[in-house]
Amino acid sequence: MPPRSLLVTPGMGIGPEVALRALVADGHTDALLIGRAAAVHSQAAVLDLDLLEVPAIDACPEGALCLLPIPDGAEPAEVASIRLAAQACLADATRTLVTGPIHKGRLAARGFRFKGHTDFLGHLAGAPAVMAFAGAGVMLALVTDHLPLSAVSGALSKPRICRVTTVAAQALRQQLGVEAPRIRVCGLNPHAGEGGVLGREEIDTIGPACDLLRDAGLSVVGPVSAEQAFTEVARGEVDLVVAMYHDQGLVPLKVMAFGQTVNWTLGLPLRRVSVDHGTADDLVGTGRASIAGMRSALSFARRLRRGP
Amino acid sequence: MPPRSLLVTPGMGIGPEVALRALVADGHTDALLIGRAAAVHSQAAVLDLDLLEVPAIDACPEGALCLLPIPDGAEPAEVASIRLAAQACLADATRTLVTGPIHKGRLAARGFRFKGHTDFLGHLAGAPAVMAFAGAGVMLALVTDHLPLSAVSGALSKPRICRVTTVAAQALRQQLGVEAPRIRVCGLNPHAGEGGVLGREEIDTIGPACDLLRDAGLSVVGPVSAEQAFTEVARGEVDLVVAMYHDQGLVPLKVMAFGQTVNWTLGLPLRRVSVDHGTADDLVGTGRASIAGMRSALSFARRLRRGP
Repeated sequence: MPPRSLLVTPGMGIGPEVALRALVADGHTDALLIGRAAAVHSQAAVLDLDLLEVPAIDACPEGALCLLPIPDGAEPAEVASIRLAAQACLADATRTLVTGPIHKGRLAARGFRFKGHTDFLGHLAGAPAVMAFAGAGVMLALVTDHLPLSAVSGALSKPRICRVTTVAAQALRQQLGVEAPRIRVCGLNPHAGEGGVLGREEIDTIGPACDLLRDAGLSVVGPVSAEQAFTEVARGEVDLVVAMYHDQGLVPLKVMAFGQTVNWTLGLPLRRVSVDHGTADDLVGTGRASIAGMRSALSFARRLRRGP
Repeated sequence: MPPRSLLVTPGMGIGPEVALRALVADGHTDALLIGRAAAVHSQAAVLDLDLLEVPAIDACPEGALCLLPIPDGAEPAEVASIRLAAQACLADATRTLVTGPIHKGRLAARGFRFKGHTDFLGHLAGAPAVMAFAGAGVMLALVTDHLPLSAVSGALSKPRICRVTTVAAQALRQQLGVEAPRIRVCGLNPHAGEGGVLGREEIDTIGPACDLLRDAGLSVVGPVSAEQAFTEVARGEVDLVVAMYHDQGLVPLKVMAFGQTVNWTLGLPLRRVSVDHGTADDLVGTGRASIAGMRSALSFARRLRRGP
C-alpha cells in the first residue's frame, strides 16, 4: 500500500462529482478522498465507479480509488474532513491537501466561524495564511483577501506587503523552482495613484515596502497600476503579481486563465491547492459541471516540490 | 469641401505619430486634425506625409490630410485644441471628437486643473460625464472613476448608480443600436459582499439601485461579483457591465481586449471616443508605438450613430 500524497477533500455541491471525475480522468493512484461518505458514494454510483472505503489514510490498496469516510459530529463532515486532512499534511510534509468547494453560508449556519478554507487552515496551522492563486503562467498573491473594500486601505502596511511578497517569492523558488521571480507589486488607487493625485497609499506605504523588498534582493517593480501589471503578465514578463485586494488581482487573472485558475495557500507549514470555483448548487446532478478547475488543482498540486 | 465629421486632437507623446499613422492606414477623408502645429508637422515630415494647414474646421479640400493649427496661449495648445474641437462638436451634432493621449502631470504643471479629458469635457459641456469603455464586444461604464480607492464606498449612491446605468444603456441603444442591452451591475466587495458578510454596500445601496433599474424596464442582473460579470462577458452573454470603480472594470476589460479598448465619454451632448493608452513618452521617436489603440478609436467613432 504505497502512500497517497494528495489528500482530496471533495467539499460540497458539485465538489464530490468533479473530484471523482477528475481523479478518474487523470489518475488517482497518488490520491485519497476524505469526505462525507453518503455524498461521495452516491456520486460514485452515478458514475459507476468502484469506490473502496478505508479506515486510515495509508490503508488504500494499490490501484484502488479510496475514500476515508468522515461522519458528522460536533462539526459538519465537510469541515471535519478538512481538519483531518490538514492535520495529516502538517504531520507529514510529503502530503499535499487538495480541496473542493465549500459553501460558507451553509456551513456558517452550522457553526463554522471562518471565512473559508484559507482562514480555517491558518487557524489549524497557527499562522496567518497568504491567499495566492496560479494560472495563465503567473502567480498572484493577495495582500488583503476577504475584506470589505472600504477596509482595504486601512489594512495595508509595510510589514504586511513585505510578508506577502516574501512568502510568495519563496514559494515560487522552493516549490516551483523559479529562482529569481520577476515581481510586480500593484498600487491601490487608479493608475497607482498618479503621483499622489489619486491617493497617497503608493507614496506612504506601498512604495516604501517595494524599496524594502528590493533592498532584500527581490526583483520588484512597483507600485504599478494593475493594468500595467497584467499587461506585462500577458506578455510573459512577470512571475508574480502582488495585488492589494481581491478583485484587483483575481478578476483579471480569472479572465486570462478562464477555468484554470487554482487557489494556492501560502505561509503555512502545509501545502494546499484548491479549485477556485464555488459549489454551483444549480449544476448538481445535471452532469454539466466542468471538471477543468479540479483537474487544474490536481495537476498543480502534483507540480509542487515536496519538502525542502 | 465636404465636412469632416471626426475631429481628432492628437494629444501629446506618441499621440501625433499614432494619429497620423492611423489616419493614413484607415482613411482620413472624414477626419480633421486639430493640434499643436510643430508636433504634428514634425511627425508628418518623419512619415513623409503631405499635411495641409487649414484656417477653419470645414476648410479642408477633398482628399487632403489637414491640420487646424492651434497656438499656445493662455492655455497649452493641446488643451486649447480639445476646447475648440469639443465646442465644434457641441455646435454640430454630426461631429465626433476623437482624442489622443495627454499627460495630466505635465499639463497640471502648466495650469490644467482637470483630472483628464473626461472631466474637462464635462466642464465644457456643463454636465457630469460618465466614463465608459468599449472592447471585447462589451461596454463598460464606471460609477466612480479617478477617485482614491478609499473614497469609493462613500461616493456610491442609488441615484449615481442609476444615472450611470441609464446613460450607458441609452447610449448603447441610440448610438450602437442595441435595443435591449443585457446589463450586469457589479457589487463593490469581494464576491459581491457574500450576503453582507464581506460588506454591506450591496444590500444597502447597489441592490436597491438594481431594483429601481429593473422597475424602469432595464434588463439588469446584479449586484454580481466582477468575476461573474466578466466570466459572462467572455461567454458573450453581456452587453454592458457597470463597475463601481476604475480597476474593477477596466483591468479585466483591458486584459480581454488587449490594445483595442476605447474610452467612450457618455452623458454629455457631444460624442467623444479616445485611445485608452497614455503618452508613452519613452516610445516617442522610436517608431515602435502601436497604432492599434488609435485605429480602434477611429473605427469605433465611425460606428456610432450620428444624431437621433
